[in-house]
Amino acid sequence: MPSIMEAEKKGILGTDVVCQIGIVCHDLEKTGKAYAEFFGMECPPVSESGDPERVKAVFNGEPSDAGCRMMFFELGNIQIELIQPDEKPSVWRNDLESKGEGLHHIAFIVKDMDGKLKKLDAMGIALRQKGDYANNSGCYAYVDARDTLKLTLELLENYAD
Amino acid sequence: MPSIMEAEKKGILGTDVVCQIGIVCHDLEKTGKAYAEFFGMECPPVSESGDPERVKAVFNGEPSDAGCRMMFFELGNIQIELIQPDEKPSVWRNDLESKGEGLHHIAFIVKDMDGKLKKLDAMGIALRQKGDYANNSGCYAYVDARDTLKLTLELLENYAD
Repeated sequence: MPSIMEAEKKGILGTDVVCQIGIVCHDLEKTGKAYAEFFGMECPPVSESGDPERVKAVFNGEPSDAGCRMMFFELGNIQIELIQPDEKPSVWRNDLESKGEGLHHIAFIVKDMDGKLKKLDAMGIALRQKGDYANNSGCYAYVDARDTLKLTLELLENYAD
Repeated sequence: MPSIMEAEKKGILGTDVVCQIGIVCHDLEKTGKAYAEFFGMECPPVSESGDPERVKAVFNGEPSDAGCRMMFFELGNIQIELIQPDEKPSVWRNDLESKGEGLHHIAFIVKDMDGKLKKLDAMGIALRQKGDYANNSGCYAYVDARDTLKLTLELLENYAD
């Protein structure tokens, strides 16, 4: 484990490890099968974003009951997340419609999500969407670094860490 | 080091390690400065794709003298490559114009580039662009997995490996 001093060197997020690359698609099963064949692995189970009452998602500042279905591929050094959004407006659905299928975000595991979101907002990197995990073991937030870093970042906080 | 048997398990490419995430942008210095500040690191030097006579790039099946300027950020588990293409048609310029700034590719280090390209082509994953490194120590190829994996893959072969 790095010390707090070392962690603080790793910039705004306190980490420089990209834990996940997110990809949006129209057909999760078809794209998942293509990934499994390409990387010579089993197709992982489908995960669901979960009950909107528990997830309490907020998109563009408003409560949202949008959801998605996901598959997680554990590659050698990083996780690839495939996401098929439902039809309701969300960071996934809106980006899928405006940019098409493809690379969507890179993700980092952080501590102190609220503190990080405040610091990012003060830098002009605003919240796009946030919510809790389906099993309430953590939370996620997508922030809009499209002007500065040219992409959407996802922050993940796992309460057990 | 994994054994050859282990490597062969890792699917079509012989590896499941994503070595690089590529991002296209309009202004390399400005975007590079934003990355350096965000991750609390020095801005890396600018690299150039190099002399077209040495690089011998091929784009969409035709010889090409398109080039780009790049910065490489070494994060904890992966490299981020920022790319500012010149104005000539290339995998970078065309994608920047059609999709805008942002995530462009993920890359893998492979052996036997020609064999890999043949195998991918037979699967319907065709070559988009290839060329040699500026210092001729290796070569790269972008292949079109947009239909299947929903992205462009880059293969890198380093002759010294």
